[in-house]
Amino acid sequence: MSNSVGLENVHVSDRFFSRYADLVRTEVIPYQWAALNDRVPGAEKSGCIRNFRIAAGEEEGEFTGMVFQDSDLGKWLEAVAYSLTTHPDQDLEQTADQVIDLVARAQRPDGYLDTYFIIKEPENRWKCVRDCHELYCAGHMLEAAVAYSRATGKRKFLSVMQRYMDYILTVFGPDPDQIHGYPGHEEIELALCKLYDETGEKKYLDLAAYFINERGQDPKFFQEELKTRGDTFHWEGNDLAEPEYFQAHAPVREQKDAAGHAVRAVYLYTGMADVAMRTGDESLKEACRTLMRSITQRRMYVTGGIGSTVHGEAFTFDYDLPNDTVYAETCASVGLMFFAKRMLKMDGDAAYADILERALYNTVLAGMSLDGKAFFYVNPLEVYPDADHKDPTKRHVKTVRQKWFACACCPPNVARLLASLGEYIYQGDGAGVSVNLLIGSELSFSHQGQPVRLEQRSEVPFDGKVSFTVRCEGAVRFALRVRRPFWAGEVSCDAPYRMEKGYMVLEREWKDGDTVSFDLDMRVRRVYSSPLVRENVGKVCLMRGPLVYCLEEKDNGKNLHLVRLPAQAAVELARGEGVLAGMATLRAPGLRLVEEEGPLYRETPCVRSEPADLTFVPYFAWANRGEGEMCVWVRE
Amino acid sequence: MSNSVGLENVHVSDRFFSRYADLVRTEVIPYQWAALNDRVPGAEKSGCIRNFRIAAGEEEGEFTGMVFQDSDLGKWLEAVAYSLTTHPDQDLEQTADQVIDLVARAQRPDGYLDTYFIIKEPENRWKCVRDCHELYCAGHMLEAAVAYSRATGKRKFLSVMQRYMDYILTVFGPDPDQIHGYPGHEEIELALCKLYDETGEKKYLDLAAYFINERGQDPKFFQEELKTRGDTFHWEGNDLAEPEYFQAHAPVREQKDAAGHAVRAVYLYTGMADVAMRTGDESLKEACRTLMRSITQRRMYVTGGIGSTVHGEAFTFDYDLPNDTVYAETCASVGLMFFAKRMLKMDGDAAYADILERALYNTVLAGMSLDGKAFFYVNPLEVYPDADHKDPTKRHVKTVRQKWFACACCPPNVARLLASLGEYIYQGDGAGVSVNLLIGSELSFSHQGQPVRLEQRSEVPFDGKVSFTVRCEGAVRFALRVRRPFWAGEVSCDAPYRMEKGYMVLEREWKDGDTVSFDLDMRVRRVYSSPLVRENVGKVCLMRGPLVYCLEEKDNGKNLHLVRLPAQAAVELARGEGVLAGMATLRAPGLRLVEEEGPLYRETPCVRSEPADLTFVPYFAWANRGEGEMCVWVRE
Repeated sequence: MSNSVGLENVHVSDRFFSRYADLVRTEVIPYQWAALNDRVPGAEKSGCIRNFRIAAGEEEGEFTGMVFQDSDLGKWLEAVAYSLTTHPDQDLEQTADQVIDLVARAQRPDGYLDTYFIIKEPENRWKCVRDCHELYCAGHMLEAAVAYSRATGKRKFLSVMQRYMDYILTVFGPDPDQIHGYPGHEEIELALCKLYDETGEKKYLDLAAYFINERGQDPKFFQEELKTRGDTFHWEGNDLAEPEYFQAHAPVREQKDAAGHAVRAVYLYTGMADVAMRTGDESLKEACRTLMRSITQRRMYVTGGIGSTVHGEAFTFDYDLPNDTVYAETCASVGLMFFAKRMLKMDGDAAYADILERALYNTVLAGMSLDGKAFFYVNPLEVYPDADHKDPTKRHVKTVRQKWFACACCPPNVARLLASLGEYIYQGDGAGVSVNLLIGSELSFSHQGQPVRLEQRSEVPFDGKVSFTVRCEGAVRFALRVRRPFWAGEVSCDAPYRMEKGYMVLEREWKDGDTVSFDLDMRVRRVYSSPLVRENVGKVCLMRGPLVYCLEEKDNGKNLHLVRLPAQAAVELARGEGVLAGMATLRAPGLRLVEEEGPLYRETPCVRSEPADLTFVPYFAWANRGEGEMCVWVRE
Repeated sequence: MSNSVGLENVHVSDRFFSRYADLVRTEVIPYQWAALNDRVPGAEKSGCIRNFRIAAGEEEGEFTGMVFQDSDLGKWLEAVAYSLTTHPDQDLEQTADQVIDLVARAQRPDGYLDTYFIIKEPENRWKCVRDCHELYCAGHMLEAAVAYSRATGKRKFLSVMQRYMDYILTVFGPDPDQIHGYPGHEEIELALCKLYDETGEKKYLDLAAYFINERGQDPKFFQEELKTRGDTFHWEGNDLAEPEYFQAHAPVREQKDAAGHAVRAVYLYTGMADVAMRTGDESLKEACRTLMRSITQRRMYVTGGIGSTVHGEAFTFDYDLPNDTVYAETCASVGLMFFAKRMLKMDGDAAYADILERALYNTVLAGMSLDGKAFFYVNPLEVYPDADHKDPTKRHVKTVRQKWFACACCPPNVARLLASLGEYIYQGDGAGVSVNLLIGSELSFSHQGQPVRLEQRSEVPFDGKVSFTVRCEGAVRFALRVRRPFWAGEVSCDAPYRMEKGYMVLEREWKDGDTVSFDLDMRVRRVYSSPLVRENVGKVCLMRGPLVYCLEEKDNGKNLHLVRLPAQAAVELARGEGVLAGMATLRAPGLRLVEEEGPLYRETPCVRSEPADLTFVPYFAWANRGEGEMCVWVRE
């Protein structure tokens, strides 16, 4: 089968994820549409759609929101496109068509399309590329346009965006009269690769490559721009930002550590991988591998979260992974999934799928409430509500998910990710199909001219049973490559296989109805950090399958730091209740340090513990039962 | 003897502290004078003296520095006054006289004296009492004036400042045409009590009481002021500050927790205690006790540091004492010493001297380098230079002491404290003398008309031997009350005594040459935090005598978090070397977790340790041997 798997070829039907897909369709997309139209009572005003109406000259008024407000519509339309692919919905498609018409009417005659500058500062287009997100918004709108074209076959949105890109091609580039620059917030690079794939026009790939290759070169564009742009600064305090914040401190091939704003970083790396694969650029591929190692070997939380500090929402330094002052933005983990998906495609190594899965089942899902109505931006691994309310150092850490944000990047990002989940499960190669995620679904593909359907049934993350049934006419020879997850110690399978790059490979002739079954070891695992992670020395975290678990005050009382999970304590499965019904929780006989009365400082250590029945719940489901303490890492 | 002990009656001659007194005289005072005059190469410009010249019309130019720049001169002059008391120095006195003449020439005809407003915004006097530090500067200058008058007998400075106070008396007060306000930064309250003591004029005490009693009453003055002051804001972002930042959230008698900016808080509490003692106000006394308990039982570091967060340099909440994002400003511990000194006087309980001593020997001394030339503002209990350089959350934590600060409050505060140390050692009462600090010194006093000299010899903190010799003519009956420090388990004494409020009381007839000797147990103590201090669970800190010890990278290598001090490890005394020569260091057979190669997250905990000879050095002496990691709390 071909390398890429279109969303239209995958039908997700999974005990765990189907409810998320349903939530996105029935809750998140309508809710966010209401939000974009300022119709959610009590939520912050978005102004997003209104901005387009004003830009189109159809309403009077001022621009509302962030300079990158347009991107919210881009992400929403992209989610809609994915949703329409898997669940056609005439009303939704009509709504989308109408807003696309509005977008087209807002476009300037020369192709320019950014409501902030159209409404507010038409004279300052491209004067503040570092901070003003024009290329970022363009990228999101372009991604949406490609997705919408693929989903509906309607080309209008795509041609609007293609016209915008053709205009951008005149603005940026190596010619003397062009801007020798690149975006402050990366995103358009990966979007341009999608446009290249869709149209086959190499100029789009070339522009993506230009942005990437120009980045961090001397003379540094952002510094040059700063000299020329006068008072057109749009982010107070941003002029203090270091080049590293924008990944502009060095040419990308010389960057050895994941650095700066984490979302920007992984969007850039994703674009780098996209360009490297399409151009066969080996040095760029190697740069991607180096940066992925930097993240996953030294700068990633056990939950797949990235970004260790609120300042610049950024990476800091190796092994610096504080659990309480953490950033770990939902969007950053979405971006890490993008990056891992490209690396999977580049190198075909299942280890990248382990990363993708870790981010998905933990940070990305934790970003949304179980009812799909509220969102975290920051995903802490340790929460003491008193600290988050009273210590300004932790004020960015919310203890309760919010309805909408002034900077509303995360909710629509989760929506588009979950709506396109089908794209992450399978990957093709000439010899067959690779299964990267163990998510119940059906894949349709053709192999050597023959149509094949592969049915995956999966109990993950509830249980380790996974099976595949082939549907075809006659016999088809292909390799079924099933990822053996990092969390599965033992795997039993009713058919012989060999291991290759982390996959269990069954290369054989398949006949209709052939089924292979796997049983993955889902025992609870005690996970430890590298001792170089200061915060976690002496601590343990529980995982089962891909899920990270945590302690919540609701089950375990206050002062979770007093709790210990002894090394020999047997951890047992239990059934979640209430909103956690259907989920496996974990129970273990722990200990709780008794808070003996005494002075603040004393010569007798407090060592008396009493038994404490501990209950661990999946991290993705935390903070769905009211406000309280939470921790992932527990003293052992 | 009378309750107060004047500095002129105490001569410090102590193996440990004399070098500090010498440093203040020979290094700090001259260095700071150069700094105030902008003559330190490479240091930030102070502009302080120049501001006075400009205000006096003797130089052209703009105001330099912070709105509270005058206070640096106040603190310096106060230190000079103390130094002149114990070490007469004609040149220094002449320099001081000259600058006092300059101060007098800068004073406005109506008595007003604040160079910022004289030079920069004469029309905005008293319009922004919350943020503009006029009363704060006035307080510091007044303290200096009182000290200078006592030191030299010269009244000029005092009469300048008294004239300023008489003018302030017309500005603030309950009359309809007066401002019903109080300072944003407390300080003047305690200074006014000193002026009251010096002059006997009750109006100054009344004004101090007015400021204290008015504070936090409804309608809230700062909010009222905000409505009227228009654009005269002097601290960007300060308008976001909560009333708690200024201790103005409630009337002082209703404040149950030490709150807000820690320096402001302890200056206020000191003024409260001063007023309460002089007015006999029992409810105010009780408020002081409550606030002191809040600090010392729930909000103080083991080093006597206070202030848990950089945001607002403030207290946060009970048991929130992070070691690495800590504030623990040097000035705050100086202020805690002021407060403890008043409480000692109020209640005569040696426990307050324990607090005073803890702050002095640890945070206050750590604030200055061993050579007296560089200063810490923030005093962390855990330092990883990488984190402090690369994680902006910790950027306020410096790993190397600085020469001078744009906001230069700490260096002169340490100077005036150390220069007046003699005031902290003894306290009189009708029946005799209390010894609060075990510092080698001679006290001259008269008891029942007879002149007495008490000679204290002390090996603290090197060793626990302390002796007292009485010098008098004939026989004198008085009670010698020697504080039994919290750190002394066993005490042997060659004379009988009874315990009273933490003092060993020897009430008897003394003859010339009578000597009593004490031997205080100076064994190394393992100290533990209340288990409610999250950061220190499972950790131990070593103390010996009043000194807190710490591990430094210099002796123990990098990654101090990998080090453990097993509960049974014997800790032995050793001799410090190099700049630590003469100090006792501690050595112990510890363990160091071996950093096994492996992934960031793994199923096998890293438990293999190898022996590590640990060296602990006194906390006050840390960061005198280059930059490196440091920690006070060590895993046990």
